[in-house]
Amino acid sequence: MDKLRIEELIRSLARLDTKSMYNNDFFLTWEKSYDEITGTFAVAQALRAMRERNISTRIFDSGLGISLFRDQSTRTRFSYASACNLLGLEEQVLDEKKSQVAHGETVRETANMISFMADVIGIRDDMYIGKGHTYMQQVAAAVEDGYREGVLEQRPTLVNLQCDIDHPTQSMSDALHLVNHFGGAENLKGKKIVMSWAYSPSYGKPLSVAQGVVGLLTRFGADVQLAHPKGYEIMPEVEEVARQNAAESGGSFTKTNNMAEAFKDADVVYPKSWAPFTAMEKRTELYGNGDFDGIDKLEKELLAQNAAHKDWECTEDLMKTTKNGKALYMHCLPADISGVSCESGEVEASVFDRYRIPMYKEASYKPYIIAAMIFLSKVRNPSEKLFELLQADKKRVL
Amino acid sequence: MDKLRIEELIRSLARLDTKSMYNNDFFLTWEKSYDEITGTFAVAQALRAMRERNISTRIFDSGLGISLFRDQSTRTRFSYASACNLLGLEEQVLDEKKSQVAHGETVRETANMISFMADVIGIRDDMYIGKGHTYMQQVAAAVEDGYREGVLEQRPTLVNLQCDIDHPTQSMSDALHLVNHFGGAENLKGKKIVMSWAYSPSYGKPLSVAQGVVGLLTRFGADVQLAHPKGYEIMPEVEEVARQNAAESGGSFTKTNNMAEAFKDADVVYPKSWAPFTAMEKRTELYGNGDFDGIDKLEKELLAQNAAHKDWECTEDLMKTTKNGKALYMHCLPADISGVSCESGEVEASVFDRYRIPMYKEASYKPYIIAAMIFLSKVRNPSEKLFELLQADKKRVL
Amino acid sequence: MDKLRIEELIRSLARLDTKSMYNNDFFLTWEKSYDEITGTFAVAQALRAMRERNISTRIFDSGLGISLFRDQSTRTRFSYASACNLLGLEEQVLDEKKSQVAHGETVRETANMISFMADVIGIRDDMYIGKGHTYMQQVAAAVEDGYREGVLEQRPTLVNLQCDIDHPTQSMSDALHLVNHFGGAENLKGKKIVMSWAYSPSYGKPLSVAQGVVGLLTRFGADVQLAHPKGYEIMPEVEEVARQNAAESGGSFTKTNNMAEAFKDADVVYPKSWAPFTAMEKRTELYGNGDFDGIDKLEKELLAQNAAHKDWECTEDLMKTTKNGKALYMHCLPADISGVSCESGEVEASVFDRYRIPMYKEASYKPYIIAAMIFLSKVRNPSEKLFELLQADKKRVL
Repeated sequence: MDKLRIEELIRSLARLDTKSMYNNDFFLTWEKSYDEITGTFAVAQALRAMRERNISTRIFDSGLGISLFRDQSTRTRFSYASACNLLGLEEQVLDEKKSQVAHGETVRETANMISFMADVIGIRDDMYIGKGHTYMQQVAAAVEDGYREGVLEQRPTLVNLQCDIDHPTQSMSDALHLVNHFGGAENLKGKKIVMSWAYSPSYGKPLSVAQGVVGLLTRFGADVQLAHPKGYEIMPEVEEVARQNAAESGGSFTKTNNMAEAFKDADVVYPKSWAPFTAMEKRTELYGNGDFDGIDKLEKELLAQNAAHKDWECTEDLMKTTKNGKALYMHCLPADISGVSCESGEVEASVFDRYRIPMYKEASYKPYIIAAMIFLSKVRNPSEKLFELLQADKKRVL
Repeated sequence: MDKLRIEELIRSLARLDTKSMYNNDFFLTWEKSYDEITGTFAVAQALRAMRERNISTRIFDSGLGISLFRDQSTRTRFSYASACNLLGLEEQVLDEKKSQVAHGETVRETANMISFMADVIGIRDDMYIGKGHTYMQQVAAAVEDGYREGVLEQRPTLVNLQCDIDHPTQSMSDALHLVNHFGGAENLKGKKIVMSWAYSPSYGKPLSVAQGVVGLLTRFGADVQLAHPKGYEIMPEVEEVARQNAAESGGSFTKTNNMAEAFKDADVVYPKSWAPFTAMEKRTELYGNGDFDGIDKLEKELLAQNAAHKDWECTEDLMKTTKNGKALYMHCLPADISGVSCESGEVEASVFDRYRIPMYKEASYKPYIIAAMIFLSKVRNPSEKLFELLQADKKRVL
Repeated sequence: MDKLRIEELIRSLARLDTKSMYNNDFFLTWEKSYDEITGTFAVAQALRAMRERNISTRIFDSGLGISLFRDQSTRTRFSYASACNLLGLEEQVLDEKKSQVAHGETVRETANMISFMADVIGIRDDMYIGKGHTYMQQVAAAVEDGYREGVLEQRPTLVNLQCDIDHPTQSMSDALHLVNHFGGAENLKGKKIVMSWAYSPSYGKPLSVAQGVVGLLTRFGADVQLAHPKGYEIMPEVEEVARQNAAESGGSFTKTNNMAEAFKDADVVYPKSWAPFTAMEKRTELYGNGDFDGIDKLEKELLAQNAAHKDWECTEDLMKTTKNGKALYMHCLPADISGVSCESGEVEASVFDRYRIPMYKEASYKPYIIAAMIFLSKVRNPSEKLFELLQADKKRVL
């Protein structure tokens, strides 16, 4: 992207109202206005374009970006570290096993104790329904309180790196990928976008990717369809969000229990496994009661339930039924690839292979999306600041 | 704090003799002069005030701050990482499990191998009496030797992040909290400060917090009282330090085995559990002999011994007996809170809750205290340099 | 080193042809030209001299240096982190246990997912014959592809931090130590340098140190002798490399199964244990077949085989037979020291002690060697850039 195009992008940002993002957290995309969503895209694109042109976008001379991952992660972990580094923050991992969190510290206490010099806190807590989002809100309230009381010099921004409800850094990367693929957010209007369940031999994958996708992609006037076997329902609250989004954006949100119907004439397909919401609710309750026999039993039931839907696979035959046989295939990675990472899984190997590069690009937006979320929270006049950085033209690599 | 107040603070620092801190380590507070102690406070306050005003205090363009934690830690770990980052150093953790330390490396060898670009080494080694401080001295001697012999380009500064004898970054934060609470170090004169043992259902908490507190707070002319049940004596050498400090500062150092007597009319109370010194000595010996049955037996004895003193709890009733019923309650955190983190513990929940914000503030000084220790060791003319940074007014967040 | 000497060093670099190192990886020293090898030394020396004079050599304003260690490490780990930090990169560790690498990610996928903002990737993978080097090549191919396809904004450089074939950051540090010890690379001509096997009670030490040493030191016209008991052969391909190197450099490469013969009149001795190549091949195969009983059996055989060669120890008596009784003793550390880290090992304690400081110096080159490898890969005109940094004279410590 040349300098003129970057300037244009920054001017488009200046026309958007993103001021509520200043000193604010990023939990759920549907809490953000359309201007805030597209403003985040604009900042992400500008940061990326400047990096490509070897222009430093470092806005912090020092400061920490804390991360807390309660689940395994490669790409989100590295994306967060990359985003922090791009802006000048050093990542510090809160490893609960090395800390004294287990020994009588409350959320409120820990949140303050790690935040004396924290500008950002990124949290991934996606395992238990009803827990992750609530935990993030508690942390946010604690640091807000700490800041007001003079304990903390700054109020760290919280970035949701995946909770039980939403996975905004993923869905925003997915959406930006689509925006670039179709040449503009306005071109998503009328596109058929399918978020489909797919079979996986592993149990208990988080619902938040599917929820995040239908909760966000319904905002651009697209026809979003959620497809899954009976019993694999997502959270009803998120379905309601998708329905309202669609109504407001002039698109639609529909559901089907038929994968073939969903793929028919689709422009975009996103086939991915997840666990049923009600099962995850039950599991959370069993954990709460310490009923580990119950959990084992539930896991076996869920695996058996999954196995009844091995036909929910994204095959070449299904892909042929999409719009001109050329729907854009998406995945948050890693995927369960039939015959590669498992015997039978979410996707046929040849389909996956064909879309490998587009999927890597899809993933490549995440560091910039996270950096944009931080930028918009920390900079009062984002378009002015971006313009300043562009003009300063300080080299990232000397 | 406005700019004039910061300048005043820096001028007060200029009048103190801190030159022996240059290129020197920070092991025990009682090895430092009164000027050096209050100089550290002044630098810590100036660094904090500048950060609050968004002024960069980065003095390193590159360089590493090594950390070695032989025990779990949240706040000291994050405080150290924060301090390094504030000054421009990147933290690197020496994780003994991931390294080859266990495979035939000597302390001398490891100390040199990690220090080629290390400006600071922070160590926490508080578990075994007679070990931690000795280990830190060995590391210091090794890097001193490596520097003299041309192996190392710089001589890394050692910062004691808690040893078997002292916990200087904690006690200095505690003291700075008191200095700010009472409006100046001179106002500690004549105050009754109580370091009291308290009951905990966990065994073997380090003595170094209690020792650090009586070893430091006796230097300000306060009436420091150490309270504990019989059998919970601290190291006699540290009691002797406290006695001498009190004599020199015009305060007093007394002991009691009666918690109620200690709390009576106290201005400050610091009730916290620790293991008896003699038991820790015995434990160290048992470890040395690999006598794990002996250790198990000792642990059971200690827990039984603790349980005989459940009445050593900081209750509302006890707090009422302090000066005007309003003594400042202190704790290094995390605390054992009765009915919250354990059935019965060090402190009644309502007392703890009432002092939550002051305790968080107490903790908030630690990153700045550590940064000040590093600053004074690395900068030949600290007041000049601080003034330079203040004038340069480089923004921490652009 | 004074400024004039640094300028001279930079001018000597300007006369060397290192342009193929730009945007290139560093896998095996024998893939690099003599100019590239000595150019790496020149950059390493210049970076070190500038750091000694408190001149910043930071060329990155932001950026990540990824590390992936599949084996324990202290000095290589810290050397890599130090090198990254010296140039302005933040280290990010890819910890395969914390990531989803195990869950169906391919090498190609992971390589791209961690590289969105990675300027360098350092890998240590030395355990299985036929694996490490191949793995590194796969990673390199994956990021090359990702860069060409527009997934990555930059093409991260790969640095081999030890593979199954070579350990270039070690052998280059060893060589630079010799260059400085003898006052110039030209003075290695005609020196007798002995890479000797030595007894160790531990089994399965990597061959790559021995291979790296004979594969590199044969390039300077030295008489390199490889000594080991029968059955401890290294990879035949590397012997062939050494033979060709010697032919080209006017030196020699010989082998012996007699330690005493090797030490006789040696200028340099490098006694170190390693496992036999054929045994390592067999072990790799057993692992491939999941034959853990076979592995146990092999380990026992290897330990028994080692034990038959306890006389392969670097003793004072052997050292007396070297050139004037004063050969330079070398080791990559940590060593198995008889009576210190094990009952009987690679070296007599008094020999080791006498060479402690030289060995620490040998190790001290590694961070600068790694930094030089990165520098030459990232900077198009290395001598110009070094001169610029020297003239700019920005302070590392303010």
